[in-house]
Amino acid sequence: MHHFYNQPDNLVSELLEGLALSTKVTLSDHRDARIVMRSDWRPDRDGRQQVALISGGGSGHEPAHAGFVGPGMLTAAVAGDIFASPGVEAILAGIRACCGEAGCLLIIKNYTGDRLNFGLAAERAREEGFQVETVIVADDVALPEAPQPRGLAGTLLVHKMAGYCAERGDDLQAVSKAAGDMAASVRSMGMALSSATLPGQEAATRKTPELGLGIHNEPGVRQVTPDSADDAVTQVLEALGRSDNGPWVLMLNNLGGCSPQEMQVLKRACLEQLGVKNVSLMLGPAPLMTSLDMHGFSVTLAPADETTIDALSAPVEAPAWPAPQKVHDIETFSPRFSQQPPAGEGRHNDTRAQLIKRLAITIEGSEKALDELDSKVGDGDAGATFAAGARAVAKALEEKRLSTGEDARLASELGHLFATAMGGSSGVLLSILMTSAAQRLESQGRTDWPGALQSGVERMQHYGGASQGDRTMLDALIPAIEALAAGQSLEAAARSARSGADETASMRRAGAGRSSLVPEQALDGVVDPGAEAVARLFEALAGSDSRR
Amino acid sequence: MHHFYNQPDNLVSELLEGLALSTKVTLSDHRDARIVMRSDWRPDRDGRQQVALISGGGSGHEPAHAGFVGPGMLTAAVAGDIFASPGVEAILAGIRACCGEAGCLLIIKNYTGDRLNFGLAAERAREEGFQVETVIVADDVALPEAPQPRGLAGTLLVHKMAGYCAERGDDLQAVSKAAGDMAASVRSMGMALSSATLPGQEAATRKTPELGLGIHNEPGVRQVTPDSADDAVTQVLEALGRSDNGPWVLMLNNLGGCSPQEMQVLKRACLEQLGVKNVSLMLGPAPLMTSLDMHGFSVTLAPADETTIDALSAPVEAPAWPAPQKVHDIETFSPRFSQQPPAGEGRHNDTRAQLIKRLAITIEGSEKALDELDSKVGDGDAGATFAAGARAVAKALEEKRLSTGEDARLASELGHLFATAMGGSSGVLLSILMTSAAQRLESQGRTDWPGALQSGVERMQHYGGASQGDRTMLDALIPAIEALAAGQSLEAAARSARSGADETASMRRAGAGRSSLVPEQALDGVVDPGAEAVARLFEALAGSDSRR
Repeated sequence: MHHFYNQPDNLVSELLEGLALSTKVTLSDHRDARIVMRSDWRPDRDGRQQVALISGGGSGHEPAHAGFVGPGMLTAAVAGDIFASPGVEAILAGIRACCGEAGCLLIIKNYTGDRLNFGLAAERAREEGFQVETVIVADDVALPEAPQPRGLAGTLLVHKMAGYCAERGDDLQAVSKAAGDMAASVRSMGMALSSATLPGQEAATRKTPELGLGIHNEPGVRQVTPDSADDAVTQVLEALGRSDNGPWVLMLNNLGGCSPQEMQVLKRACLEQLGVKNVSLMLGPAPLMTSLDMHGFSVTLAPADETTIDALSAPVEAPAWPAPQKVHDIETFSPRFSQQPPAGEGRHNDTRAQLIKRLAITIEGSEKALDELDSKVGDGDAGATFAAGARAVAKALEEKRLSTGEDARLASELGHLFATAMGGSSGVLLSILMTSAAQRLESQGRTDWPGALQSGVERMQHYGGASQGDRTMLDALIPAIEALAAGQSLEAAARSARSGADETASMRRAGAGRSSLVPEQALDGVVDPGAEAVARLFEALAGSDSRR
Repeated sequence: MHHFYNQPDNLVSELLEGLALSTKVTLSDHRDARIVMRSDWRPDRDGRQQVALISGGGSGHEPAHAGFVGPGMLTAAVAGDIFASPGVEAILAGIRACCGEAGCLLIIKNYTGDRLNFGLAAERAREEGFQVETVIVADDVALPEAPQPRGLAGTLLVHKMAGYCAERGDDLQAVSKAAGDMAASVRSMGMALSSATLPGQEAATRKTPELGLGIHNEPGVRQVTPDSADDAVTQVLEALGRSDNGPWVLMLNNLGGCSPQEMQVLKRACLEQLGVKNVSLMLGPAPLMTSLDMHGFSVTLAPADETTIDALSAPVEAPAWPAPQKVHDIETFSPRFSQQPPAGEGRHNDTRAQLIKRLAITIEGSEKALDELDSKVGDGDAGATFAAGARAVAKALEEKRLSTGEDARLASELGHLFATAMGGSSGVLLSILMTSAAQRLESQGRTDWPGALQSGVERMQHYGGASQGDRTMLDALIPAIEALAAGQSLEAAARSARSGADETASMRRAGAGRSSLVPEQALDGVVDPGAEAVARLFEALAGSDSRR
């Protein structure tokens, strides 16, 4: 499967049904006339006559046109098959369904099929006594090489202008005039990197960047070689004639296959190149007049006079009409970064400094052993990571940057050191341990290291997502701290750490951390390097030698 | 160029700038801390304390998270590089920028990097005296085979719930509780046909359908082989556990690379399979939590209790939050098709019938000659098309289905006949000619064929887009009708038609119609077959023989 479609034959029906499941429209129940009409529309209700607005054309351009049916925009849309104009009978049925005494305006994109079928339907409807006017939209910029200018996304501005006028009660002549003026002033130009994939096809048939293309897989006016999004926008705006400074209404349309990220980059490029000051109103970026999954975009410009701004800004209930946005210069602020981290400004204690140094030496000396363990169950750098932390601690001791005589300060300083010096998840986890412990030591105003570490370990688990038994350093850390908290000796804590570390060798599945993607059999018999490091640390703390 | 990007290194900045050009946010001016904050946010304004809400994570998921910053949703978003968590300092700077007396809640997606960096930032911020709570979102449905459940699009429901509570003035504890409850109840599951293309890559590296995938190109839980959009939805809903009937809030998320058409088909499938009655509120389809251009979608379900509905429906100014929609059964209406077309119910006139028959025979007899002309300058079926019309007319005459004794009726009947019997543009154009002429004949209440035909030809040009000189049947039709309108004889009109047709042989460029895509040199010396048909018709009408 190459696209999320069902039977290609059902596509148009499914598209309309998808829409009708959550919007205030009513669908024709006959496949020969696919009409989507405002469900609140009664052509002659309350004696208040309102001009009906009908558009439509081939499908494959969703949300156009059915997504623009609603109070303030279209009264009805008539949908043909994919890229094929609806038939005369379908259009005529649409006119019959919504044209009342005030008459109706057909808004037609400039393609031969649409012009002829809507045209004949208009003539037939007149024969039946309906008042019908037509406006043909050809917003495609007529490049010298181009065939007839086509109706593109600019058609939607005509829908909106006509909808605004009809909604406020203008008569058919006035609505047609306003729609015609808008159609005459709007221009569009697109660029795509590929053609559209027709339902049932595997992939787009063309994969060359083209400028000035239509929305039915007609080839573009010429092949181009933009080297960036900015360049693509430059080429499109040049074709649109941007020498004129506006002010403009800018509509940025996703032809279907651009990612939200690409559209945002293109939006930025458009505004930068046109100048924020020259854009009075922005519509999109959004998929508005698409060509299935065509990987491209189109830019539509219209002069931003007051009436146009009012008409395009008036609220509507059509589900696909994008909220008009005012553009402006970017507002910025300066973030406050951390000051120089706390570094040894508290009291110092030489005995404590000696102890910490011994721990650092132990861990530094374990680098190779830990790396070896990690090469079996992780990416082989656990020793290097822990040793980097140990070396940073030793250096800080030498430079008197650790407040060895004040518990809370010391924990906080170690927290900062681990985060910057160690890298990887281990560094952040140990930093969380120490930073959280520091808060506990500070708030209690007394030296309860076991309690502080317990609080820190709880935070490590909360943020790290691992628990005891998950084959991480917690398997040594938790039992050791529990021993201390229960008032046991450092030696007992060291034994608990060691036994916790040893148990990791028989844990078959790593629930989190370094080994969670390693196959079970590779883990068998290997102690987790993080747990091993913790065990060695506690052994050093207790004055006993490291086991290996 | 494969995507509309500029330098990959600048992508994240450009994405945020694109947003900031049209929304009410302020951007950090430092690349090391990419923060997007409500521009109206003053943590301690007016003595009214409001809880600040901060989210964020790797970029590449736009509009998440920056697009959800605004009154009623997030206070700020902190953006990392593409698919990489923002650093601790960046998050901390975000907390400092918007956390006031009421404290702040960090909403974190369940990825190790985000958990650790947001976690450490939270601990540091507490150390600095800020009140900080965290909620971790893991809405990914934990399939038996899956690793840790991840934070997916469901995160946005947590943003919205927290934003609703914060906006109405709930304190930090209450906001955190509501966010946590929502995080606990929401579940998501996605399917994609390809992985995301990283900026700088040419194309996605994986092209196999996968279920239960993450948003950072992690492989899915398993490869699947859906055979249709409906089947894809079935598999996703089954993984979500749809045995429970809801009522649900349904969010349908475009992972970035689905076309609007695909998303509409998927929406319809979701609603059909869940049942409209079981969906209280629908969000999307829209790109909400994307993975660059990943060709896939995700479905998020949350129980639709009253509080949830209220919270998710409350208006917000965050630009990317989709309008919540009520879903309902499809409403339908029956279109009114044309009755049996008018068929000879008026008076009959044998002389007129004989004349028309002669014209029909002339055109039928010209089939081969016209086809030959068309084979040089078109698709070779002009003779067949005109002959089909002529045969239909002859048959209608025989069956007394033409009101030969009443001009307006006759024109209207011929208009219907041409549209159905001839096919192609020629049939519709002749139908427009006759239908429009009928109106004129009817409205004038007298027999002014020249005037009626002039009116019809004007409509043909209006809808068909061709003018005299464009190498179409108009080149014979217009001079002949002008001659009649000027009171000249039928013979004179026939001569005008002939001379107009002959002139088409020297027209080098076809401005519209059958030959507009034919190279110039192929046209040289060949009479346009439509003009030739018209000339023969007028010659027959005048009683002179066809020239060949």
